[in-house]
Amino acid sequence: MTGFVSFVSSGPGDPELLTVRAVKRLAVARAVLFDDLSSGPILSLANPEADLVGVGKRAGRASPRQDHVSRLLVDYARQGQHVVRLKSGDAGLFGRLEEEITALRAAGIGFEIIPGVPSPCAAAAAANIPLTRRLTARRVQFLTGADVSGGLPEALNIDALADAQATTVVFMGRRTFCDLAGRLAAAGLPADTPALMAEGVSTADQRIWRGTVGGLARKLAAEAPGELPALILYGPLADEGDDE
Amino acid sequence: MTGFVSFVSSGPGDPELLTVRAVKRLAVARAVLFDDLSSGPILSLANPEADLVGVGKRAGRASPRQDHVSRLLVDYARQGQHVVRLKSGDAGLFGRLEEEITALRAAGIGFEIIPGVPSPCAAAAAANIPLTRRLTARRVQFLTGADVSGGLPEALNIDALADAQATTVVFMGRRTFCDLAGRLAAAGLPADTPALMAEGVSTADQRIWRGTVGGLARKLAAEAPGELPALILYGPLADEGDDE
Repeated sequence: MTGFVSFVSSGPGDPELLTVRAVKRLAVARAVLFDDLSSGPILSLANPEADLVGVGKRAGRASPRQDHVSRLLVDYARQGQHVVRLKSGDAGLFGRLEEEITALRAAGIGFEIIPGVPSPCAAAAAANIPLTRRLTARRVQFLTGADVSGGLPEALNIDALADAQATTVVFMGRRTFCDLAGRLAAAGLPADTPALMAEGVSTADQRIWRGTVGGLARKLAAEAPGELPALILYGPLADEGDDE
Repeated sequence: MTGFVSFVSSGPGDPELLTVRAVKRLAVARAVLFDDLSSGPILSLANPEADLVGVGKRAGRASPRQDHVSRLLVDYARQGQHVVRLKSGDAGLFGRLEEEITALRAAGIGFEIIPGVPSPCAAAAAANIPLTRRLTARRVQFLTGADVSGGLPEALNIDALADAQATTVVFMGRRTFCDLAGRLAAAGLPADTPALMAEGVSTADQRIWRGTVGGLARKLAAEAPGELPALILYGPLADEGDDE
């Protein structure tokens, strides 16, 4: 009697941005393990009889150890249950799936990954801009602004990130953006490169700030860190669209 | 009497990978303008009374001119209708939204962009791999392998693309990959870098080939171009996962 784990991408936050398949899996799961960012109204879609288990590890807060999450997943599945592991955005993007997958493989438990709407796609849509544009923004890249220590990851490819012809999206980059902006400037990215910061994308708290890379670095240096999850997007498209 | 246009991302092909909001918009639209890649079973979700208008421009085929598509969008909206412009994957990624948005703005017609599941997220999920991994794959980048002429785009940032510590996904890259692989090798990317090619992702025809960048270039040089849309993914994660 072995269960099964569905890694379900919950999208940026709005329940209407879940996929049809994600809704179906939530409706039948017997246990749902969720992060902070995939909680809220999305959990109301879960099977009313499911165990709902918060395993959040939001940046900067004390959080359950990863091996504890993996053990919970394996324990629920060994009871023969269908387990949903809910991950915000798209599960494959900075979701740290690898440790949980390794634990499931070691335990001989089957799994599937259900892709979802990444937060950069939702942020760009909310700002009424595409992420790419013929001739001027032909490459798009995503990186995380924080490693496990909370600092900027080591060994960044700064030349790739300083390319003014790409759209770059930094996940969890609010606390480290001043540092990153300094390194981008040193590598030649103009300080007046358009930038936007999107907080609480697709939720009632959504806010979109527009300016430049240099202006955003100054703003973030001057203010207390916000509580909402924030994405930073810079590149040739960030000053287009509007909030119509 | 002015209508409204919803740019709706249709995801990689499987109707269950549409978002809940996309399904809602299709159900009420009075006109649906669709590309080749977002046709098939997804169109059966459309309002039965909607006009379904194919405006495909699949790589390598004759296709309607872009200004014709924009004119159709404006014409339908001016009749006071709710128009869905369906785009495969996520509409903001290589969907060439900008020309249609410009036309709508010029005509004073409101619009929204509904984000969706990008094909790289669906391809990675189908291959049971994440797109990023702590320490070894901290940056992910997407590019198109074909510009309007069908050739490799000019002014590629080859150093960024030859970074063995990133996951790179090439859209519409089948015909140009031999050329790209040669340039990556010259920039220092090892020919044995893991690679996978995913065709017909999330459809009944899905096929995933696994090998190396060098091996894929040889395979594509030796065979007739396939008919299915193909994504090429290379980087440290491409040889993980399996087809369990």
